Amino acid sequence: MSEQTQLIPGNSLITENPEKGRALAVKMARLIIKITQPDAVAREKMRPIYANDASMLIAIGQTVATEFATIAKANNYWK
Amino acid sequence: MSEQTQLIPGNSLITENPEKGRALAVKMARLIIKITQPDAVAREKMRPIYANDASMLIAIGQTVATEFATIAKANNYWK
Amino acid sequence: MSEQTQLIPGNSLITENPEKGRALAVKMARLIIKITQPDAVAREKMRPIYANDASMLIAIGQTVATEFATIAKANNYWK
Amino acid sequence: MSEQTQLIPGNSLITENPEKGRALAVKMARLIIKITQPDAVAREKMRPIYANDASMLIAIGQTVATEFATIAKANNYWK
Amino acid sequence: MSEQTQLIPGNSLITENPEKGRALAVKMARLIIKITQPDAVAREKMRPIYANDASMLIAIGQTVATEFATIAKANNYWK
Amino acid sequence: MSEQTQLIPGNSLITENPEKGRALAVKMARLIIKITQPDAVAREKMRPIYANDASMLIAIGQTVATEFATIAKANNYWK
Repeated sequence: MSEQTQLIPGNSLITENPEKGRALAVKMARLIIKITQPDAVAREKMRPIYANDASMLIAIGQTVATEFATIAKANNYWK
Repeated sequence: MSEQTQLIPGNSLITENPEKGRALAVKMARLIIKITQPDAVAREKMRPIYANDASMLIAIGQTVATEFATIAKANNYWK
Repeated sequence: MSEQTQLIPGNSLITENPEKGRALAVKMARLIIKITQPDAVAREKMRPIYANDASMLIAIGQTVATEFATIAKANNYWK
Repeated sequence: MSEQTQLIPGNSLITENPEKGRALAVKMARLIIKITQPDAVAREKMRPIYANDASMLIAIGQTVATEFATIAKANNYWK
Repeated sequence: MSEQTQLIPGNSLITENPEKGRALAVKMARLIIKITQPDAVAREKMRPIYANDASMLIAIGQTVATEFATIAKANNYWK
Repeated sequence: MSEQTQLIPGNSLITENPEKGRALAVKMARLIIKITQPDAVAREKMRPIYANDASMLIAIGQTVATEFATIAKANNYWK
């Protein structure tokens, strides 16, 4: 993993509100895929595959839900 | 992800009661699928596929359960 | 999702004991499937499929376990 | 689900020690499969299938791990 | 499950340090597979299958991660 | 598992910041795969398989998310 790769934008789990926390969850999930498959062309080739596969879309939802659980707790649920 | 996309309706995890928290979990899970596959026609084409596939229906249940765990905690279990 | 659909029977996560909490977890998991596939005939057609597929039965167990974790915590583990 | 079905033996998550908590996790996972497929003959027919399928054995491990997380917490990790 | 089967070595979730906690997570995951498939020959036959299947290796990682979450919490993260 | 195998680099879950915690999650997930398939050649052979399979990339994301949840909590979310 190169020095430039950023796994967590801003190096923080704290966000202003739930919506931004949710966007961070999506971003963090995507960045793991990016470091596992660093080739942008290869990633682009997979996009129409998962975007049209119900099963994979559900699995993406599962991963985002898990990331979001951590972010929501870090932010004390924005209460 | 466009500015208009709303990942969490009302930008809050707090709901009046468990039923509404559950509905929010379903909605949040669906909105992740929506930003991953923004084409409404493509999403509609997948609906009869997952709605008639026991395996996918179970997986949807798993994702909703994970989202709901976060929402329930945010609401202190509506106690 | 119609107004009549009830995602959480009794609109509460609180149950008298662990057994009833477990039954609620099963019920809540089933109700997510019901709102995703509202056609009772279609659901019935899938029953012999998942009931005879070891892989799907295990996946159902996983979903119930996740729902139960939330319910058990809501009830402070019935201690 | 019939009145006689017992989803949680002893109707309690509290166990004497971690070993017994782990056994309860296994049992609870199995009882969900039992209520979903109540036919003992059908369940027996599936046993050699999942017992010789690495993928299913791993999935069983995942479900037990999730059940155990709840039981361990209920018992304050037997500390 | 025979009396001799040990699901948790030492009947405790407490370990000296994170490394040993991680090893316990691996061990606990393996012992669930062992009680589900008690035949050592059958288990050995599956080893080259999952050890050369990326998908199964990832699934093993998921199960260990879930077991470890419980062990880490039991040990208050070794802080 | 040999004495030299290190499941957790530094034998600690504590990291300086979220970014380093995330990198530890990735590393810990990989080390589980390494002890399950100790043959480096076999692991290298699988790399192009999972790196070009959307479904496996999503599953890797799920495992990292679960590991990260534990690490983030151990670090009190770096607050």
